[in-house]
Amino acid sequence: MGTDKRVKTDIEIAQESSLLPIKDIAKSIGLSENDIDYYGKYKAKITYEKIHSLQNESDGRLILVTSINPTPAGEGKSTVTVGLGDALNQLGKKTLIALREPSLGPTMGMKGGATGGGYAQVLPMEDINLHFTGDLHAITTANNALAALLDNHIHQGNLLKIDQRRIVWKRALDLNDRALRQIVIGLGGPSQGVPREDGFDITVASEIMAVLCLSSSIDDLKLRLSKMVVGYNIAKEPVTVGDLGVEGALTLLLKDALKPNLVQTIEHSPALVHGGPFANIAHGCNSIMATKTALKLADYVVTEAGFGADLGAEKFLDIKSRAANIKPDAVVIVATIRALKMHGGVPKTELQKENLDALKLGLENLQKHIETIQQYGLPIVVAINRFTTDTKDEIAVLTEWCQQRSVPVALTEVWGKGGKGGIELGQLVLQEIEKNNKTFEYLYDLQLPIKEKIKTIVQKVYGGTDVEFSSKAEKQLIEFEKFGWGNLPVCMAKTQYSLSDDPSKLGCPKNFTIHVRELKPKLGAGFIVALTGDVMTMPGLPKKPAAYQMDVDANGRAMGLF
Amino acid sequence: MGTDKRVKTDIEIAQESSLLPIKDIAKSIGLSENDIDYYGKYKAKITYEKIHSLQNESDGRLILVTSINPTPAGEGKSTVTVGLGDALNQLGKKTLIALREPSLGPTMGMKGGATGGGYAQVLPMEDINLHFTGDLHAITTANNALAALLDNHIHQGNLLKIDQRRIVWKRALDLNDRALRQIVIGLGGPSQGVPREDGFDITVASEIMAVLCLSSSIDDLKLRLSKMVVGYNIAKEPVTVGDLGVEGALTLLLKDALKPNLVQTIEHSPALVHGGPFANIAHGCNSIMATKTALKLADYVVTEAGFGADLGAEKFLDIKSRAANIKPDAVVIVATIRALKMHGGVPKTELQKENLDALKLGLENLQKHIETIQQYGLPIVVAINRFTTDTKDEIAVLTEWCQQRSVPVALTEVWGKGGKGGIELGQLVLQEIEKNNKTFEYLYDLQLPIKEKIKTIVQKVYGGTDVEFSSKAEKQLIEFEKFGWGNLPVCMAKTQYSLSDDPSKLGCPKNFTIHVRELKPKLGAGFIVALTGDVMTMPGLPKKPAAYQMDVDANGRAMGLF
Repeated sequence: MGTDKRVKTDIEIAQESSLLPIKDIAKSIGLSENDIDYYGKYKAKITYEKIHSLQNESDGRLILVTSINPTPAGEGKSTVTVGLGDALNQLGKKTLIALREPSLGPTMGMKGGATGGGYAQVLPMEDINLHFTGDLHAITTANNALAALLDNHIHQGNLLKIDQRRIVWKRALDLNDRALRQIVIGLGGPSQGVPREDGFDITVASEIMAVLCLSSSIDDLKLRLSKMVVGYNIAKEPVTVGDLGVEGALTLLLKDALKPNLVQTIEHSPALVHGGPFANIAHGCNSIMATKTALKLADYVVTEAGFGADLGAEKFLDIKSRAANIKPDAVVIVATIRALKMHGGVPKTELQKENLDALKLGLENLQKHIETIQQYGLPIVVAINRFTTDTKDEIAVLTEWCQQRSVPVALTEVWGKGGKGGIELGQLVLQEIEKNNKTFEYLYDLQLPIKEKIKTIVQKVYGGTDVEFSSKAEKQLIEFEKFGWGNLPVCMAKTQYSLSDDPSKLGCPKNFTIHVRELKPKLGAGFIVALTGDVMTMPGLPKKPAAYQMDVDANGRAMGLF
Repeated sequence: MGTDKRVKTDIEIAQESSLLPIKDIAKSIGLSENDIDYYGKYKAKITYEKIHSLQNESDGRLILVTSINPTPAGEGKSTVTVGLGDALNQLGKKTLIALREPSLGPTMGMKGGATGGGYAQVLPMEDINLHFTGDLHAITTANNALAALLDNHIHQGNLLKIDQRRIVWKRALDLNDRALRQIVIGLGGPSQGVPREDGFDITVASEIMAVLCLSSSIDDLKLRLSKMVVGYNIAKEPVTVGDLGVEGALTLLLKDALKPNLVQTIEHSPALVHGGPFANIAHGCNSIMATKTALKLADYVVTEAGFGADLGAEKFLDIKSRAANIKPDAVVIVATIRALKMHGGVPKTELQKENLDALKLGLENLQKHIETIQQYGLPIVVAINRFTTDTKDEIAVLTEWCQQRSVPVALTEVWGKGGKGGIELGQLVLQEIEKNNKTFEYLYDLQLPIKEKIKTIVQKVYGGTDVEFSSKAEKQLIEFEKFGWGNLPVCMAKTQYSLSDDPSKLGCPKNFTIHVRELKPKLGAGFIVALTGDVMTMPGLPKKPAAYQMDVDANGRAMGLF
C-alpha cells in the first residue's frame, strides 16, 4: 500500500530484489550456522539451544506498531513496520523486525499477502505467503489430530462421558471455505463414528495458534495445550486435552513450529516472522518466542499487532505483555489521509479528491486511539503513511492537528522508498524512547470479575457507555467463575472496522452499548473470549478468488501473488 | 521388523545414530550446495535446475523390492529396501535408495512409522514420520483449496452448471479420522454455501498425491492437475480442474512438493524419500521425479512398491513404468518364514513354533508372486527377511524350495546388522542383473477395452478365473469409453491381504471371481480405478492410538515414535 502509481506489483519488486543467503542475515545478529536450521536458502528457524543460551542477555527496546480502525482504503501497518525496521537499521541501530506469518486462506481468497508492500517487504514473499516453514500446517494437523482423537475416544467407549452435544473443539483448515462452517459428521452407521454437529475454523482462529504464540518454551506449550477445553461431560464439567492424555502428541506435532523463523527485508534487515493468530477471536500478535528472542538479539525490535489499537494493541498490552512479562518502549499509530477521510464519511470512490472537512471529522478516530495508548503510559508517534493522492493541505491539516496536541507525527514513504522513506519516523521514535519518563500500566487488574474487565475495555478503549450480556453470557459468567476461570484476561472478539460492535459506525461513535452474546474459555491460551456481534472464524471466498490469477513457471517461479 | 529380541526400539537406534550433514550426503552423489535446498540440517530438496541439468546423463540400474501378500506378522519390505541399498554401497556400488514418504495418519494411529527398522532405517526418522519437508501438507492444502474453489463456484452462481449431487472431488486430511468419512456440508442457510453430501479421504488417497508421483515436471504436473475430474454437470458431462481454471493455483501450491527429498540411512547411504500414494486406491509407488533423478545420480537404485506384488509391483510395472518410460533390471520379493506360515494357516499367536507343513502350504503365495514377476520378463531374487524364531529346518525348506525352482534366494539380516546383513542379497541381485537376457513387457496393451485389461490382471496376476461387474460398473464402462477414457491403464483397488478380493483368503486362493463394484476416473493420474470389495480411503484410529505414547522433551527431542 502507499501509492497509486503502481508501476510494479509487490511480487515484481520482490522478485527483482536480490536476497542474501540466510546465514549472512543470521550472522548480522550474532547467530552462527549452528544456531539455525535452514528451510531453503532464504529461510531458517532458530534452534532451542540458541534460544536457551540467550536467557541472560539484556533486552533491547520494543516498538509496537498499531493503527486506526482499518478501512477498505488500506493503512499499510505491516509495510510501515518493515519500513521502520529498515529505517532504524539505516540509522545505525541494530534492529530486528517481528511480524506475524500470513494465512493461506486470505492469500488464495482476497488479493493480498501479508508481507508488507512496495520496497518495504519481507522476502521471499512467495514462500512466506504460501507454505513458509510449515508452521500453520503443523497447527492445522495438531488441531485436527485432537479432533480425531476426541471423536475416537467417544466412538471407542467414551470413558470420559463426553457429551457430544457439548463439544467445543472444532476442526480447522488454513483456507477460506464457507461450506465447512456448519457440518454434520459421523454419518453412515456405527462403523463411521458418532454423528454430531461440527464445523471448521480457519487455522489462525484455532486456539492452538494462540497457544503457540503465547508459549515461552516447549514445556509451557505442553502445559497450555493440556489445559485446553475440548467440551463438557454429561455432568457439564469441562473436559480438557489433559483429560484425554494427548498433550504429548500435540506438542510433538508442534515441536518445530514453535521455533521462530528468520527471513530478511528487501534491504536485508533481519526479520522474525512467526505466529499469526486472528485479532478478533484471538489476540492477533506474533509469537512470544519470536518477540523475546528478538529482544535478546537486537537493540531495537519493531513489531505489530492486528487490526486497530482497540483490538490488536489492547490485546498486546493486556494479554501478550502480561504472559511474556515485556512492555513496549513506544507505540507507533499508523494512519492514512485516505482512511481518515473514510472515517469522516467519504465513500471509497471519492477518496482521490481533497476533502479537508471529512479529514477533520475522521481525525476523531485517530484521537481515540491516541488516548487509548496514553492510558497505558506509553509514548506515541503518529505515522502518516503517504499516498500520492494526498494533497499538501490535507497533510498540513493532519500534521498541525498532531502538533496542537503535542503528539509527535512523521510522514513516511516506505512503500516507494523503503527504509529511506521512514528515516523521519525512525528518528522521532528514537527521540520519544529516549525522553520517555512515563510508567507503563495494564488497563485492568486480573482480579476484577470478568464482567468488570469487559466493562473497563469497553469504556476506556472503545469509548462505549455500557455492556449488555445475553442471558447465555450471563449464565456463562457464573459458570466460569465457578470453574475458577475468573482471573484470566479477556480477549474481545469484535468487528475491526468500528470502535463499537457495529461495523458501519466509522469515526468515533459515542453513547453506544457493546453486546456480549457468548463467552468462550480458552484456557490454553489463558484468556476468556467475549464474542460481540458476528465474528467470522471461517471466511468465505469472493466471487473471483485471487487463486484464479495464480500460476507458476517450469522452474517453480510464482506468478500472480499479490 | 526382523527379530524378536528387541533390546532397542527403532527410535532409540535412530537417535543413537550419528548423522552426517546433508551437504556431505549430497556431495557423495555429485550434488553441490547450490543443487539442494536445506530443510534443517539433515534433509534437503534437489533443485529443478539440477534435475534439468541431468537430462542427458545415462541411467543406472533399477531394483524393485516387492513382497508376498502382507500379513499381521510383518514382512519388512522397507527395511529390506534400505538394507539392500546399504549393502550395495558396502559392495562399492554407487547406490541410491528411493522410498515413499510416510503418512501421519497411520503414524498417529497404529504403532509404526514407515522408515525401515532396526539398523536399516532412513534418518531423521522422527522428522520423516512427522511433517518431513511439508509435501503431504502441500497436497492436503491443494486438495482442499480445490474443494473450496469448487463449492465457491457453485455458491457464486454455478456458471459451469455443476450438479452438486454428482461431485466426485472429496476433501482430505493426513490423519485417520473415521468421523469425516461421510459428512454433510454447507449447512446454516444461504450465506454458508450450498448443502451437499461430502467426505474426507486421507491425503495419500487424494488423486493429487498420485498426480504428484506420476508427474515428470512442473508443466506435466499442471497439465495433469487440469485434467482431474471434479464432478459432472447437469448434462452429466465431466467437469475438470481446467474447466474451473485453477490448475495454476494448485500447481503453485505444489511447486516445492514436487522436488525430491534427500536424506540418509543409518550407514549414511543417500536416500530419496518422496511421494506416498496409497497402494489400493492409487498406484503405491514413490515419485517419478525421485526415481528418475536417482537413476541419473547413481549406478544402482533400490525402490519399493506398496503391499504385495499383486498390487504395488503390478502398478509399478503397468502404470509407473509406462508413465516414466523406465523398467526395473531386477525384482526382489521379500518373504518371512512367519508370514508364509500365516499364509499356510497358522494363527498369529502360534508363529513362534516351528511348523514345516504350514510353511510349505504358505509357499503357494510366494510361488504366485514369482510367476507374476516372471510374466513381465524380469529377473527375480527372493529375500528371506530373517527373524530369530526362524528354525534351521524352516529356512532349509524355504531355501531348497527356491533352489528346486532355480529361483535365486538369499537370507537377509538387515534389521539387526544393517547393510552387512544384506551382502549376500546384494551380490545375488548384482549377478542376476549381469546375466539377465530377458525382455521386459507390460502385462496388457493399453488399446484393450477397460474390461479386458481388468480381466488380464485378474487372471494373470491374481490367479482368479473371472470378473463380475456390478450394474453400476457396467454402465460406467460404456460411459468411460464414450468419454474417450478407454485407453488408460487400470489401477486396481483391492484388499492387500489376499490375492482375491476377500481379505480372509490367504495363501493362494483358486477358482475365485473378482467383483468390480465401481470405477473411478483419475484422469490427472492417468488411470481408471476399479474398486473391488470395500476399499478404505479414510482409516480410523484404533482403541489405543499410538498418539497416546508420543511426547517431546524441552529441547524438541521426540519420544514414543515407533
